[in-house]
Amino acid sequence: MLVRVRPLLTSDPTAERVWPRAQARKAGQLFSGLLAMNVVFLGCAFISSMIFNRVAITLRDVGIFLSILKLLSLCWIIYYLLCTSRKPHAVLYRDSHAGPVWVQGSLVLFGACTILLHVFRIGYIISHIHCKSPLEILFPCTEIIFICIQVWNVIFSGIQSLRLIAGRCGLMLTMATDLLLWLLAVTNDSVHREIESALKGFSSSCTCPNTTACLILQKGYVLLYPFNPEYCLIGSSMLYVMWKNVGRRIPPHHAIHAKPKFKLRGVIYGLVLGISTLFIGICIFMTYQIQATSSAPSQETLVLYYSYYVALLPMMTVGALAGTVIHGLEERELDTLKNPTRSLDVILLMGAALGQIGISYFSIVAIVATNPGDLLDRLSLTYAVSLIIQHITQNIFIIEGLHRQPLVENPDTSPKHENCDPRRVYPLEIRQELRRVSHTYRHTYGRLNWKRKALKEISIFLVLCNIILWIMPTFGMHPAFENGLEKSFYGYSTWFAIVNFGLPLGVFYRMHSIGGLLEVYVSS
Amino acid sequence: MLVRVRPLLTSDPTAERVWPRAQARKAGQLFSGLLAMNVVFLGCAFISSMIFNRVAITLRDVGIFLSILKLLSLCWIIYYLLCTSRKPHAVLYRDSHAGPVWVQGSLVLFGACTILLHVFRIGYIISHIHCKSPLEILFPCTEIIFICIQVWNVIFSGIQSLRLIAGRCGLMLTMATDLLLWLLAVTNDSVHREIESALKGFSSSCTCPNTTACLILQKGYVLLYPFNPEYCLIGSSMLYVMWKNVGRRIPPHHAIHAKPKFKLRGVIYGLVLGISTLFIGICIFMTYQIQATSSAPSQETLVLYYSYYVALLPMMTVGALAGTVIHGLEERELDTLKNPTRSLDVILLMGAALGQIGISYFSIVAIVATNPGDLLDRLSLTYAVSLIIQHITQNIFIIEGLHRQPLVENPDTSPKHENCDPRRVYPLEIRQELRRVSHTYRHTYGRLNWKRKALKEISIFLVLCNIILWIMPTFGMHPAFENGLEKSFYGYSTWFAIVNFGLPLGVFYRMHSIGGLLEVYVSS
Repeated sequence: MLVRVRPLLTSDPTAERVWPRAQARKAGQLFSGLLAMNVVFLGCAFISSMIFNRVAITLRDVGIFLSILKLLSLCWIIYYLLCTSRKPHAVLYRDSHAGPVWVQGSLVLFGACTILLHVFRIGYIISHIHCKSPLEILFPCTEIIFICIQVWNVIFSGIQSLRLIAGRCGLMLTMATDLLLWLLAVTNDSVHREIESALKGFSSSCTCPNTTACLILQKGYVLLYPFNPEYCLIGSSMLYVMWKNVGRRIPPHHAIHAKPKFKLRGVIYGLVLGISTLFIGICIFMTYQIQATSSAPSQETLVLYYSYYVALLPMMTVGALAGTVIHGLEERELDTLKNPTRSLDVILLMGAALGQIGISYFSIVAIVATNPGDLLDRLSLTYAVSLIIQHITQNIFIIEGLHRQPLVENPDTSPKHENCDPRRVYPLEIRQELRRVSHTYRHTYGRLNWKRKALKEISIFLVLCNIILWIMPTFGMHPAFENGLEKSFYGYSTWFAIVNFGLPLGVFYRMHSIGGLLEVYVSS
Repeated sequence: MLVRVRPLLTSDPTAERVWPRAQARKAGQLFSGLLAMNVVFLGCAFISSMIFNRVAITLRDVGIFLSILKLLSLCWIIYYLLCTSRKPHAVLYRDSHAGPVWVQGSLVLFGACTILLHVFRIGYIISHIHCKSPLEILFPCTEIIFICIQVWNVIFSGIQSLRLIAGRCGLMLTMATDLLLWLLAVTNDSVHREIESALKGFSSSCTCPNTTACLILQKGYVLLYPFNPEYCLIGSSMLYVMWKNVGRRIPPHHAIHAKPKFKLRGVIYGLVLGISTLFIGICIFMTYQIQATSSAPSQETLVLYYSYYVALLPMMTVGALAGTVIHGLEERELDTLKNPTRSLDVILLMGAALGQIGISYFSIVAIVATNPGDLLDRLSLTYAVSLIIQHITQNIFIIEGLHRQPLVENPDTSPKHENCDPRRVYPLEIRQELRRVSHTYRHTYGRLNWKRKALKEISIFLVLCNIILWIMPTFGMHPAFENGLEKSFYGYSTWFAIVNFGLPLGVFYRMHSIGGLLEVYVSS
């Protein structure tokens, strides 16, 4: 004799209604996840075959495969846009949680730069048209169309309304395409090799008739290249967030927190120190870029660059450590509520840090194994070690800060208290308790003041430092490539893959930590 | 004027006491996670350097680095064992959630096989001692000690009592060491290359004086090799589960579910079909192994092997699909409660499937690109495609099954009802409702009977199929290596890394899905 035990325990009458919805969500997640997994695996196998067996699978085969994927994704996007445009309240469902404004802005920026990169690539192919297949122009063209429509889709439309499996599958297909484009960008150094051999003057069968135009196209291509993997990464992570949010109802208590405003009042030391750091950094950057456009950067410029970093990074580390200690002293309570946006923030911060930390560890092993004893190499070793320590300490500082409860100025005028007047809601004894607590904290606040001020100084200094550390690699300063030691140690292709894997993650990390630090600044 | 808003909202007096504990847990997770990340990155850089630059970093350097890590882990384990043995109630804190018995059993089995592998390796080194450094014996010796103490620690002691950061850091250090040993096992094919060239009769400077003993040592080493990455994987995943469980209190409602017992009553078709499949499989396996010990397996044996798979896999796929459809028809409610053990189960199942799916996609690309038209290659292509489909459908079936509420036989004698007699706890109207519900479900059960019976038949059939699919690769049947097409397509080292990455995951997948299918069998 069998009976079900479960229904005896669930007295909640709404539970029955929740199940089919949860079931549909689970099924959608499972099927779309499996689709993405299969596409990514097939693509990985394709790209790996191209790397390890250049005869059987050529870059053209991979290009055709990716073009088919792009076409399928585009079909889905267009179908989706047509579907939502018919619904009158479609705008109401826009997914505001796909990322803050700065992430959306950077998607547009990197998308624009990647389009420019592909324009340069088209120019490069046209200038070598006598020895290249005209089919090669097709790939950057499909890429440009794909980027335009994808950016438009991510920014200007949402996915909340599509709770069907089709919606999820489309998102995952586009994400898988972005991931494969990223993998190709990280591993495919064929154009770089061509350009390098052309710049070194090796005569190959395929030379450019117009030297000046070609040089500009080549320089532009090399300079803009890191934007390509960067764009693919940001695009796929935004699509992943959208996929996670399909059908999720954001709990109402998230809207309660009154957001403190950004004010620079009373912050002096951090601001001055940060701005001077920024200024010095920009000077070094200009020197480097002026040299790099005419020839390779000189030994002195590289020494200057590494010295700047070796001086700056320990300062940032000390700042982050001091901030962490102050967080510990502050005794402000931890916000242990489950918060999916913050969890994702922390994961992205930790994940993005892996890029630069990875490059640094590879550098350290290469330098220590070679043991050259050169000034530049010793500087480069110190730089790699300091970078690792700086990333770790800054992450701890930001994560500690994000988990603190924000302090809201003057609760009588904050929106929450406007809506629910304590005299109306709470009985007398609670109002007295409220007044007592308020008094205690006003007293405590007097003691905490220096701590909060120090946190603000530290975070604004770190924000400015991260801005300059973001500017340098984003706009073409890649001494890891010019230095040459690691390149000869690991071999060109391996080092190219390591740098192109780590560098865009590093740029993403700087952007993300600027956002996190600003939040710490505002909430402290 | 600033006051804190938060305390006005939290009226719960226990909330204050929870914070420091949550804070300590977060800090411990963060620090130990960062430690593991740094160790893994440094180790990856080391091992990659060895792969890409064999002159600067040798296998010996990597061995020394890993020996230091093993020594540190051992120090921690010994310190930990000394600490817990002093506490009188240490046994009470054993982590029973580190894995079910079959996982612990397989850890012991794979540990034993890996120790045997290292004994063969020591024998191999001694037989070549005239041209090898005596230091090389040291590495397998440290490995044997490390495995013994680690298995003893994971199985016979627990970690629940250690809520300190030191406990977490030790676990993470051991996990990082296991991961690096896995990476080295996946990528290091130096001994295989030596053995292969010796078997082919290429004369090298380092030959074995005693041919028969050497042949046995070589065969044993090659046969046992897959146990090494397998052991490292299982060890690190158990340590990860223990790390996740440090300081977690298992909610009491998990203990309520009365576990249905395993009974074979009434299951005929699935059992008969499964046992005959198992029998045929064992015959093919024996034929293969007898041929493989004397020489390389013949073309006919390979055709037989692939034909067996090509016949079996579609049957399994059909079974899993039918099961999924029946799950959908069954209308049993989904168990949507958060259940960390089940979530981990699902993640491990999906993650482990990636190994075989990865190998299959690489095979498909290689075969399609080469396009040989041979019977064996066409069979091999069908085999790869069927394997992918079988993995996906089986995963869906198991996941659907795990999310169903278990049906408990005869509630009057189940332990939960012994403890709380409904007449004592529930008032009259609820008792009447209970009786009504019980009657309804007894009625429904009559209609559901054929569905439940079909589910039991399907799952027992799949269990037996997975057992034979587990036996074959575990005990040395690796036609992916003998076949040769992929090996020549990707190159020896790349294909070695792909197979050694995917194969242990595939073995782990079969074991894990046997466990999952048994659970589906019991609960349906």
